[in-house]
Amino acid sequence: MDRSSELGPPVGFDRLYGLEILFASPEEVRARVRVSDDLLQPFGLVHGGVFASIAESTASLGSWLGVRDEGKSAQGLSNQTSFLRPLVGGTVHASARRRHKGRTTHVWEVDITDDDGRLCALVRMTVAVRGASGHSK
Amino acid sequence: MDRSSELGPPVGFDRLYGLEILFASPEEVRARVRVSDDLLQPFGLVHGGVFASIAESTASLGSWLGVRDEGKSAQGLSNQTSFLRPLVGGTVHASARRRHKGRTTHVWEVDITDDDGRLCALVRMTVAVRGASGHSK
Amino acid sequence: MDRSSELGPPVGFDRLYGLEILFASPEEVRARVRVSDDLLQPFGLVHGGVFASIAESTASLGSWLGVRDEGKSAQGLSNQTSFLRPLVGGTVHASARRRHKGRTTHVWEVDITDDDGRLCALVRMTVAVRGASGHSK
Amino acid sequence: MDRSSELGPPVGFDRLYGLEILFASPEEVRARVRVSDDLLQPFGLVHGGVFASIAESTASLGSWLGVRDEGKSAQGLSNQTSFLRPLVGGTVHASARRRHKGRTTHVWEVDITDDDGRLCALVRMTVAVRGASGHSK
Repeated sequence: MDRSSELGPPVGFDRLYGLEILFASPEEVRARVRVSDDLLQPFGLVHGGVFASIAESTASLGSWLGVRDEGKSAQGLSNQTSFLRPLVGGTVHASARRRHKGRTTHVWEVDITDDDGRLCALVRMTVAVRGASGHSK
Repeated sequence: MDRSSELGPPVGFDRLYGLEILFASPEEVRARVRVSDDLLQPFGLVHGGVFASIAESTASLGSWLGVRDEGKSAQGLSNQTSFLRPLVGGTVHASARRRHKGRTTHVWEVDITDDDGRLCALVRMTVAVRGASGHSK
Repeated sequence: MDRSSELGPPVGFDRLYGLEILFASPEEVRARVRVSDDLLQPFGLVHGGVFASIAESTASLGSWLGVRDEGKSAQGLSNQTSFLRPLVGGTVHASARRRHKGRTTHVWEVDITDDDGRLCALVRMTVAVRGASGHSK
Repeated sequence: MDRSSELGPPVGFDRLYGLEILFASPEEVRARVRVSDDLLQPFGLVHGGVFASIAESTASLGSWLGVRDEGKSAQGLSNQTSFLRPLVGGTVHASARRRHKGRTTHVWEVDITDDDGRLCALVRMTVAVRGASGHSK
């Protein structure tokens, strides 16, 4: 079930770089970011940190949707981004899929593609699931 | 030798999130980012993508400084960020150190610390070094 | 096309830990390892290094099958293994799928499962493709 | 304090590939493995899985030494190995250093070097610390 309509508009960093959530569930999240000059690195390519950020947000959102009813929180534990093809314009598309649901960690794989569906980056996100009591890792 | 003074002010995404380069050489780069509400995720912590972005920029800059005189370019190949301690305000400090200089890849380790010097994230960046001719990986 | 029958039996380390290649092509490789006491860590679980080793071998083999006709070689550049579920006996099953074919690197995702098809580890392997001339990275 | 003398000889997989623990404490572990033909991949280099295995064992051992008195266990959560320089003979040397000690995870960096002290691989190991009650991640 798509829960993206329940969510308010992005805030903070997600708003700064222009994240748009298109679909959100505990197992899958899809999002996009339109490329502007504000997202480029010095040589005119989309900055690798943009890909890492989208993956971070989509995976954390999905994990949180899956545990919030138990009063738990979700927080990134590691982000492993491989850059495969530079992107210079158009829209960045992200499709995040949960591959593992453990008691204390979830693992997501996020495919980042361009407007032609070509794979530009692969991200594995590990998200820590915590009780309300603590933040420390 | 510190080459940060030769560099112009940050552009594009680095300007958007507020990167300041403090020291730059082919073996070491130091930088910082002052935390504002624009850098937070929905629960009030600094967004993990900010740490990944700083690491990407510092390592790529250092590698480029080391190969530009040969007419080569440097481009992120992978970014592995481990989140250790949440950061909620103050300044994000980054210290990037080149651990390996190969013919086609450089490997950097980037320590992300808070104002008290506590380790908040560890990043390993692999940077591809290319001749002027091609981008594809 | 399955090229596993062209390959001789495993040698060296692959023989030591008992790798069996079941299917091999440039895009996909499947393999298995039967668990014995020689593969366990001190607490009786299959040693994490076994999962990493199988992923290394399957991805490198697949990449090599894809470039050997051009006189090139393939060599692991990075191995990112996430451990999801401990395995204590039976057979380790590996399914490696090439996700990216670049000019100088291939990226593989390897699923490690148990006899019941449950995901025990996820591995992302980056393999460097080189001309005959050089090894250095 | 070096606790390696309290430990018995390696068992299981560690014995199979020839691990020797030289120094062991909760913050640092040093080990070595003598290279034989049994540790090579098909092209005559030390198999990448050997580096990953040594890192897994040293980091997990160190974490366990640090938590066993509290009745807790330590288990690998992720292993990120970057291969920097091939090794063809002599001895593999590993130096593991704990970089983070959290409540539920420890993070280690392991340097793998050859007989000349040259860096051959870098490994970041994340180790999960658990109470006696459960294994699931």
